[in-house]
Amino acid sequence: MGTDTAASRQRLAFVKGHGTGNDFVLLPDGAGPGGLTASLAASLCDRHTGLGGDGVLAVVEVAADPVARALAAEVGDADADGRVAAWFMDYRNADGSLAEMCGNGARVFARHLLDSGRVAPGAFAILTRGGVRTVHAEAAGDVSVAMGRWHALGADVALVVGVGPRHWPALGLAVPNPHAVAQVDDLAGVGDLAQPPSLSPAGTFPDGVNVEFVVDAGPGAIALRVHERGAGETLSCGTGAVAAAVATRLARGEAVQAPRTTRVGVPGGSLTVREHPDRSTWLTGPAVLLAEGVVDALALGG
Amino acid sequence: MGTDTAASRQRLAFVKGHGTGNDFVLLPDGAGPGGLTASLAASLCDRHTGLGGDGVLAVVEVAADPVARALAAEVGDADADGRVAAWFMDYRNADGSLAEMCGNGARVFARHLLDSGRVAPGAFAILTRGGVRTVHAEAAGDVSVAMGRWHALGADVALVVGVGPRHWPALGLAVPNPHAVAQVDDLAGVGDLAQPPSLSPAGTFPDGVNVEFVVDAGPGAIALRVHERGAGETLSCGTGAVAAAVATRLARGEAVQAPRTTRVGVPGGSLTVREHPDRSTWLTGPAVLLAEGVVDALALGG
Repeated sequence: MGTDTAASRQRLAFVKGHGTGNDFVLLPDGAGPGGLTASLAASLCDRHTGLGGDGVLAVVEVAADPVARALAAEVGDADADGRVAAWFMDYRNADGSLAEMCGNGARVFARHLLDSGRVAPGAFAILTRGGVRTVHAEAAGDVSVAMGRWHALGADVALVVGVGPRHWPALGLAVPNPHAVAQVDDLAGVGDLAQPPSLSPAGTFPDGVNVEFVVDAGPGAIALRVHERGAGETLSCGTGAVAAAVATRLARGEAVQAPRTTRVGVPGGSLTVREHPDRSTWLTGPAVLLAEGVVDALALGG
Repeated sequence: MGTDTAASRQRLAFVKGHGTGNDFVLLPDGAGPGGLTASLAASLCDRHTGLGGDGVLAVVEVAADPVARALAAEVGDADADGRVAAWFMDYRNADGSLAEMCGNGARVFARHLLDSGRVAPGAFAILTRGGVRTVHAEAAGDVSVAMGRWHALGADVALVVGVGPRHWPALGLAVPNPHAVAQVDDLAGVGDLAQPPSLSPAGTFPDGVNVEFVVDAGPGAIALRVHERGAGETLSCGTGAVAAAVATRLARGEAVQAPRTTRVGVPGGSLTVREHPDRSTWLTGPAVLLAEGVVDALALGG
């Protein structure tokens, strides 16, 4: 990056971070004049010719950005407690597709806003395509994000998921993206989750579904493996952790009369899910910022 | 990376680069007080909780480092033309293991030395665990590295490599790491190379072998797919490109009477191999530096 002139390059500041192994390229000064295109996101996330990540989080100041202001006008600009979102989390998946929200991404985004001095410690709101979300971060420690209310999916049919020759009954939940959660005896024995598990009745989830396999890990604790649609088996999935905690509680026939927490072991670490009686949920866990620098967008492949 | 004090962290400068998709974390100021340990290399190369890479290249000034000076005393400090190596390429693979040399890594290392002003354009020498290597880099364009002399391996036995139900005759070559090269009609039809191909006679390569599958791509051109031992199918392999070019020429019964070049298509791009009558070889291709920054070694997993 030495001999070329600055004018011949498009240099973007970046931060690399992850939450339980779900990893992201943050763009703290935004995505540059062209915005966060599908092509830029995919080339940044390429794990050999880019920086590598499950997705890109561009940091956009709502007041300074017409697109973010229009979004805020559409989905609201404050959370239920009146906290106004000053920052928009512009998010794309590694394949360049848009996503409304990403629980682990929001926690990493919040950790960055706080560590960079853009917000004060405590609770604050961020704008996402899925609406305003409340997050909670302190100078050190875990970061929490409000994950909204879950609701049942396909409760009138008997869902069955399958991997190879084995099959398990499953529960469908929207968080709000679709999940099918199966209770199993042994996570390793589930087999290879690189490809989408089979699902019946066929056509229940025409846009695909995330599938969690869950084992009971003692009082208030579960462990899971997850197949994320379009991504294969992943180290962690925030909405999957929420779906797994809720589904396991429902399978046990237990109600939520007071805030209730479940520790959720995922392949990349440990998360905590909190459920409230009104079906609202919070996701809590580590959010790590491990590197920062400058990327030459013109040197990226793709 | 904002609120903690500098003293509580171990911050390392890094550069991310790749050659035909074979990607590396460079440490331009070296690996810090602890040196390039297996654990540091593996955690830097982790593709979710680190920066991600096929390996780490620490830049070490020979005159200033006792280990590099001892290595130079052992393997020599200059190339055949008397160019003294001022810089040692301390290299580890993503699994933390030591490697004597890495052709694509040496090209990326040379690009960095030139772009950072540590060497002048043209030919210069670098020190590796496999001895002093001559490299050639200009301000822009491809970078070349001397890959040494190949020699035949197991020429007295009929090697056969297999993937699933299919089998092909193969030629064994040392570059100097071991390769088995099979000529095939169709690269896609070879099948899944994530797992090591079978090899007979069994026990021919007790430490494992890299296996290349090669198709003729017209005059002076081949294309390949490669299984690298310990890594699975990769986007590119420098010694594999050399082995494939030599083996294909030998299979055609052609001699090298003057410097001869072969274009080698690899999944991650295009390389050129030059063979000389004395069996010495050069590898030429792109070397891209795409990002630079600072990584917090204490925030890495592993």
